[in-house]
Amino acid sequence: MSTQGQVITCKAAVAWEPNKPLVIEDVQVAPPQAGEVRVKILFTALCHTDTYTWGGKDPEGLFPCILGHEAAGIIESVGEGVTEVQTGDHVIPCYQAECRECKFCKSGKTNLCGKIRGATGVGVMMNDRQSRFSINGKPIYHFMGTSTFSQYTVVHDVSVAKIDPIAPLEKVCLLGCGIPTGLGAVWNTAKVEPGSIVCIFGLGTVGLAVAEGAKAAGASRIIGIDIDSKKFDVAKNFGVTEFINPKDHEKPIQQVIVDLTDGGVDYSFECIGNVSIMRAALECCHKGWGTSIIVGVAASGQEIFTRPFMLVTGRVWKGTAFGGFKSRSQVPWLVEKYMKKEIKVDEYITHTMTLTEINEAFDLMHEGGCLRCVLSMHP
Amino acid sequence: MSTQGQVITCKAAVAWEPNKPLVIEDVQVAPPQAGEVRVKILFTALCHTDTYTWGGKDPEGLFPCILGHEAAGIIESVGEGVTEVQTGDHVIPCYQAECRECKFCKSGKTNLCGKIRGATGVGVMMNDRQSRFSINGKPIYHFMGTSTFSQYTVVHDVSVAKIDPIAPLEKVCLLGCGIPTGLGAVWNTAKVEPGSIVCIFGLGTVGLAVAEGAKAAGASRIIGIDIDSKKFDVAKNFGVTEFINPKDHEKPIQQVIVDLTDGGVDYSFECIGNVSIMRAALECCHKGWGTSIIVGVAASGQEIFTRPFMLVTGRVWKGTAFGGFKSRSQVPWLVEKYMKKEIKVDEYITHTMTLTEINEAFDLMHEGGCLRCVLSMHP
Ligand SMILES: NC(=O)c1ccc[n+]([C@@H]2O[C@H](COP(=O)([O-])OP(=O)(O)OC[C@H]3O[C@@H](n4cnc5c(N)ncnc54)[C@H](O)[C@@H]3O)[C@@H](O)[C@H]2O)c1
Ligand SMILES: NC(=O)c1ccc[n+]([C@@H]2O[C@H](COP(=O)([O-])OP(=O)(O)OC[C@H]3O[C@@H](n4cnc5c(N)ncnc54)[C@H](O)[C@@H]3O)[C@@H](O)[C@H]2O)c1
Ligand SMILES: [Zn+2]
Ligand SMILES: [Zn+2]
Ligand SMILES: [Zn+2]
Ligand SMILES: [Zn+2]
Repeated sequence: MSTQGQVITCKAAVAWEPNKPLVIEDVQVAPPQAGEVRVKILFTALCHTDTYTWGGKDPEGLFPCILGHEAAGIIESVGEGVTEVQTGDHVIPCYQAECRECKFCKSGKTNLCGKIRGATGVGVMMNDRQSRFSINGKPIYHFMGTSTFSQYTVVHDVSVAKIDPIAPLEKVCLLGCGIPTGLGAVWNTAKVEPGSIVCIFGLGTVGLAVAEGAKAAGASRIIGIDIDSKKFDVAKNFGVTEFINPKDHEKPIQQVIVDLTDGGVDYSFECIGNVSIMRAALECCHKGWGTSIIVGVAASGQEIFTRPFMLVTGRVWKGTAFGGFKSRSQVPWLVEKYMKKEIKVDEYITHTMTLTEINEAFDLMHEGGCLRCVLSMHP
Repeated sequence: MSTQGQVITCKAAVAWEPNKPLVIEDVQVAPPQAGEVRVKILFTALCHTDTYTWGGKDPEGLFPCILGHEAAGIIESVGEGVTEVQTGDHVIPCYQAECRECKFCKSGKTNLCGKIRGATGVGVMMNDRQSRFSINGKPIYHFMGTSTFSQYTVVHDVSVAKIDPIAPLEKVCLLGCGIPTGLGAVWNTAKVEPGSIVCIFGLGTVGLAVAEGAKAAGASRIIGIDIDSKKFDVAKNFGVTEFINPKDHEKPIQQVIVDLTDGGVDYSFECIGNVSIMRAALECCHKGWGTSIIVGVAASGQEIFTRPFMLVTGRVWKGTAFGGFKSRSQVPWLVEKYMKKEIKVDEYITHTMTLTEINEAFDLMHEGGCLRCVLSMHP
């Protein structure tokens, strides 16, 4: 029986309030309107940006909402005027849209897209500025234009990447956020050259993907920094060649790194979200050319600072969102690379669970041993 | 009578203490040692970096010293092992050395040079870590490896650019600092493309050279910002197309610029040395790609700050020293460009004086009407 054009009632994890456990609810998901698609989410992973908003650290976070943005699924139905995808297509929802028409998309200089931000930024859909989610008539906000902690979600057509149907969705869901962010930070934002010395602050999924990207780019030394020494063993498999635990040193960590590298690193990556570490990451860069990329998301209201002399003497400070990848164009390419075994994905999955266990999955994220936990949405 | 190998006694403006008027003294200038050259300075201009150190704002400033770093002259004699220049060569002393051998010079990524910094940073020469200047046996420190407020100075051979002897030294002395800094900030550091929207904070010599460089690079809009509206008329001649005096606006200047440019500028340049303006300069850049270049030198101890979100959403923060120009290789090329009338120099000279009037020249620098004041050293 086709569900097309019908409201679908399904299970979703609803965040009613910041910091309160998510509640599995029966949610009504309206059909997609013009320029929208409804996706049956098969697998979703959890990312720190979900915990960030859930923890109330994002002042723009709206509640109640359905979180989740690292997922894979199949298109259930499409709205009016949708031409590039159709029912049955395998897709990865993308929180960075790609409309190919706006000033940003056409600039050739960024992967950010301006088309739907005015709606996704406030938890609604563009067409009528309403949510497609409700519980007994009460609307539930969207999140990042994806809301993948639901068995069905509605997203804008410019926010889904159509991928090879052979790809295992329980793995490639990770290509919706953390892994591309790390790889792209190296390949697109920093453009690391062979022989470079790289250092990475924070060896979670994003930091390890930076290591993997740096190794592929031919970096000669990949220095991993984490306050959790348990991260070091696994990090070796991702290309990290040296480890530093700042707790083992009395000197500021930037000085430790400068001393260890004859003046500093060529590229540094902050993959934690800590503004003091962002400063250290800039200051451990080599005078004249060292470039630091901010990947981590800091708590709102916090600021980065340094002496301007650091920049006047040639260091460069940058940041990255989704690793600079154009979502609809490049996520399918990342899926291909995974299928050809050119990039890792399985190795980042340390836990698998089901939607009903989502609160335990959130707890797991604070444990050292967890990289990504993938939830099966229709077990 | 040859002075070669002899101590030369000549006039120099000595800064005995921070903030005290310079004193014209009879100074003994020792002959150049190995790897050094002695230069008869014919013309020197004053730059804000001189006032900065003279004003005691540079904690590394050493007194008594001989300031000055924007000059031109003729080689009087050379020390042992000097092969690339000889007596009689016309030269511009360069505070950024270029040895072509160190890690920096060979990197292909920066114009900074590491070879002699350990000595010039502490006001002495590399060979014996002593000063070549003295007054009755009491040593006077060098400054920036140039000390051009003296009729004769000794500099390292890696710190002089040999130029076309036909070039008028009373003009091209300006190619020792301010003009190359502005032009190079655009051409080397920012690499401004045709059609770009540029904004410039501070319309002194450096800011005007940025405007000139941006015009040459094909920028479509060049927005000049200064609190001194008198700067606007002259700025037009250097390519500035629009003017903003922050005092005319209640909104923060970055917001004024974002509103005026449909989202922000492609490139911004801070040419003042004010950390709050450095923040504004970053924040008026367009999301996704806008790049801000710090050119001004802030008072020591001051820090720049912003929200990391500014960088994560694609803005880039950089700085520049001597505009990224390789001094010995490229200053002669800039002189050629001036001779072919491809870059302005004369237009930056608003005053001419003699060495004995140097304190009045310093006073002039705080007046709105003064860009560069050139001192004749042997009138
Ligand atoms: N810019 C983007 O597009 C983007 C995309 C995804 C994630 N992120 C952000 O990237 C960051 C990393 O995400 P993740 O999923 O890898 O997180 P994670 O929590 O799995 O990893 C963070 C790591 O940093 C370590 N750490 C914490 N404090 C530290 C300190 N002071 N010094 C050294 N190490 C420290 C932790 O032990 C952990 O190993 C988060 O801030 C996340 O929000 C950004
Ligand atoms: N990075 C380098 O290699 C390098 C080289 C040379 C000079 N500099 C630095 O560049 C800066 C500019 O040098 P200059 O010789 O052109 O100086 P200048 O004093 O001639 O020009 C500065 C201009 O800024 C304006 N200004 C001051 N405060 C302002 C404010 N709050 N808002 C807007 N405008 C303001 C002034 O009216 C003036 O027109 C100085 O800090 C100097 O030390 C850096
Ligand atoms: Zn994420
Ligand atoms: Zn777009
Ligand atoms: Zn100068
Ligand atoms: Zn060198």
